[in-house]
Amino acid sequence: MTSVPTARPAPDAASGVRLDLADLHASLSDPVLDAMNFLNEVVSRHPDAISFAPGRPYDGLLDPAVITDCLTAYTDQLTAEGHTPAQIRTRLMQYGPTAGIIREPLATALAQDEDIHVPPEAVVVTVGAQEAMLLTLRALCAGPRDALLASSPCYVGISGAARLLDIPLVPVPEGADGVTPAGLADAARRARKDGLRPRMLYVVPDFANPSGLCMTVGGRRGLLAAARQEGLLVMEDNPYGMFRSDAQDVRPTLKSLDVDRRVIYLGSLAKTGFPGARVGYVVADQPVVDPAGRGTLLADQLARIKSMTTINTPGLAQAVIGGLLVRHGFRVRPAAEPGAAFYRANRARLLDALGRHLPPAERDRLGVSWNRPEGGFFVVMTVPFDADEAALERSARTHRVLWTPMRSFYDGDEGDRRLRLSWSAVDPDQVEQGVARLARFIRESADAEA
Amino acid sequence: MTSVPTARPAPDAASGVRLDLADLHASLSDPVLDAMNFLNEVVSRHPDAISFAPGRPYDGLLDPAVITDCLTAYTDQLTAEGHTPAQIRTRLMQYGPTAGIIREPLATALAQDEDIHVPPEAVVVTVGAQEAMLLTLRALCAGPRDALLASSPCYVGISGAARLLDIPLVPVPEGADGVTPAGLADAARRARKDGLRPRMLYVVPDFANPSGLCMTVGGRRGLLAAARQEGLLVMEDNPYGMFRSDAQDVRPTLKSLDVDRRVIYLGSLAKTGFPGARVGYVVADQPVVDPAGRGTLLADQLARIKSMTTINTPGLAQAVIGGLLVRHGFRVRPAAEPGAAFYRANRARLLDALGRHLPPAERDRLGVSWNRPEGGFFVVMTVPFDADEAALERSARTHRVLWTPMRSFYDGDEGDRRLRLSWSAVDPDQVEQGVARLARFIRESADAEA
Repeated sequence: MTSVPTARPAPDAASGVRLDLADLHASLSDPVLDAMNFLNEVVSRHPDAISFAPGRPYDGLLDPAVITDCLTAYTDQLTAEGHTPAQIRTRLMQYGPTAGIIREPLATALAQDEDIHVPPEAVVVTVGAQEAMLLTLRALCAGPRDALLASSPCYVGISGAARLLDIPLVPVPEGADGVTPAGLADAARRARKDGLRPRMLYVVPDFANPSGLCMTVGGRRGLLAAARQEGLLVMEDNPYGMFRSDAQDVRPTLKSLDVDRRVIYLGSLAKTGFPGARVGYVVADQPVVDPAGRGTLLADQLARIKSMTTINTPGLAQAVIGGLLVRHGFRVRPAAEPGAAFYRANRARLLDALGRHLPPAERDRLGVSWNRPEGGFFVVMTVPFDADEAALERSARTHRVLWTPMRSFYDGDEGDRRLRLSWSAVDPDQVEQGVARLARFIRESADAEA
Repeated sequence: MTSVPTARPAPDAASGVRLDLADLHASLSDPVLDAMNFLNEVVSRHPDAISFAPGRPYDGLLDPAVITDCLTAYTDQLTAEGHTPAQIRTRLMQYGPTAGIIREPLATALAQDEDIHVPPEAVVVTVGAQEAMLLTLRALCAGPRDALLASSPCYVGISGAARLLDIPLVPVPEGADGVTPAGLADAARRARKDGLRPRMLYVVPDFANPSGLCMTVGGRRGLLAAARQEGLLVMEDNPYGMFRSDAQDVRPTLKSLDVDRRVIYLGSLAKTGFPGARVGYVVADQPVVDPAGRGTLLADQLARIKSMTTINTPGLAQAVIGGLLVRHGFRVRPAAEPGAAFYRANRARLLDALGRHLPPAERDRLGVSWNRPEGGFFVVMTVPFDADEAALERSARTHRVLWTPMRSFYDGDEGDRRLRLSWSAVDPDQVEQGVARLARFIRESADAEA
């Protein structure tokens, strides 16, 4: 936004305080941050390239009219329930309860959409699921030996939050259907051998970012049993569950299968509502007992931590999302349906184009393959060359097509020859041409390697 | 909000996972949290009591029409600058840049309001000043020996954030005009003697919470010199600077006096705009050099940390605050003027009532005194009895008047016989009666002690 220019020049950078990156917190020196920066920078330097890089929702699904419509729906609902205008004003504009003002409608939506039955007191509304991760990690990883186990490849939001809090992370390699019970047990064993205390597993059972994998129902039950066996909590993150190709084949969340309150569930309205509200939440119905024998819920403790991170999620943003729930009968699923239909179609479009531009014989010859996720936002492609920053730069400059290198999602080198393609944000009209360009880039790079 | 009831009962709490508070992060066992909980609980149990407890803005200053008016002002401004409807939609509703979308207007407002001249790149928009504290602490306190120095008494938001990150806190006792250069040097010395590396000082130079003290201009210059001498950064938090009794006597912020980029400045729109937007910001124009010799600003590094806490401040909330700035010519001061006038009048009302209900002879006899801040939200009263939770409970139940015990703002016992009164949130019509009740409570408690 242009505004009145400032009058005085900034002080001379050569004099005065000068900080060393190496003297700041170690999380800032992590190469993942540099990789993310580089990706953003390439994307911004090539605005005309066709991009399969960003994992954000499709711009065309966003409608600013929703903001005021939802705000009105929320305040009308409060009025109908007997709240005075002064009470409504306070709720929207004043500091609010740390745990949030839309816990009840969220709990109702969870029951209706996901068969997750928890009291509203078990819900804490957060600034996106990212803050929910931070609160949960901070509460449960109390000492330097308390470790987080996480699926590998792993969403950078959780590995970043763990680094921020100096929490050791132990990777749990995904199988063909995501994290496995045996993989979990093995990782817990390794952690203990290294002197760590494994505390919980982070997992995205439905269409993980970045792998796109979806756990089977049997795999989910097995994972919960393994977590019980190992004495681990499970942090289930579910941003993509609503977006699957076959709406009939909805699989139960871990939380809905949870019989012993082992699962902490993270939800996000960023993809089902809109990202600019930054409303997520955490369900934490685990009982916590203090030394005096008083009982609270883990959610109460997460809210206490939140009072030290953001105090409360903006009432304004919660009100808009609250209105979205009101307008859809306290369900998220119908609100997400236009998005789900779009992502279904764009996924089919991308996979179809990949199949045509890289037919079976050619991909065998080149050594190229990809998975076929049944939902979510992402497909992972294995290529016969390093899918590194230099390759991305070449892809952007010469072929005008963008994607995400997978290296940052792994602890080791397993991602070096993999790239992530997203169908969530690309214009449907551009998919065909984008894949044609990608195929040319891959052929050229593979041939150069051979 | 009432909504459709959930169908299934929650699982039996007696079986399954059960957590021990002592096994969660130590910050959760801090007595300050219990004290804050108790305060909230007393306030909610006595809704009809007259309350000088909460430090929040006056409800009567909040106007929901501001939300849509400001949103319109912001989008109109973007339109006038040539942004397309699609671009505006994306800015409001999509994921946005981690450092924020209203850095330019905030930088302009800082120049116009506060004589603080920094490039927009030095500003990071945060979810309230609370998140700014968290980011700043995390960036600069990298190892277990890196300590924060903070004024004593101290705002619980900063001491809480330090505990959350296991950062040692060294108190710097306030003098009659706030933190002193000698006090700072002494605290730094003590910290080093304890094997700590003092990294920075947290200070609220204008009408600190809770003390209400305001530093002199000479004291500010002296403090900066002492910080330079000790090699410390200064985190200046300024939520109350706009609210002083004599609008002519505005004192320069530390940041505006900062010649060597020593000051990290925290701003908040919670009191000058409205809390429900949860928009704050941090100014960090310190150069940071990485091992390869590349230069960034500390703000860039804080934004990287923010990508692991909340990703970005809600675009929706930023847009409303951006519109507030647009409507007031890219200044905060005129937007804050109605609030400033209200707080000036309510402060005078409270101090006047205290003087009449506890006249000099009686307060000498009782051993009661209070300071007379020239702005801000708070006055501190010293009483001849323990101003503890039992006293607050008695005050609430018997006298129907609420206040904040000061103990939680101190490391030691200096706050045990002090209480904080806020004039910010109390209805003007209730001040007289509230003070009459308070005087009766104090007389009764002092006499019981004698």
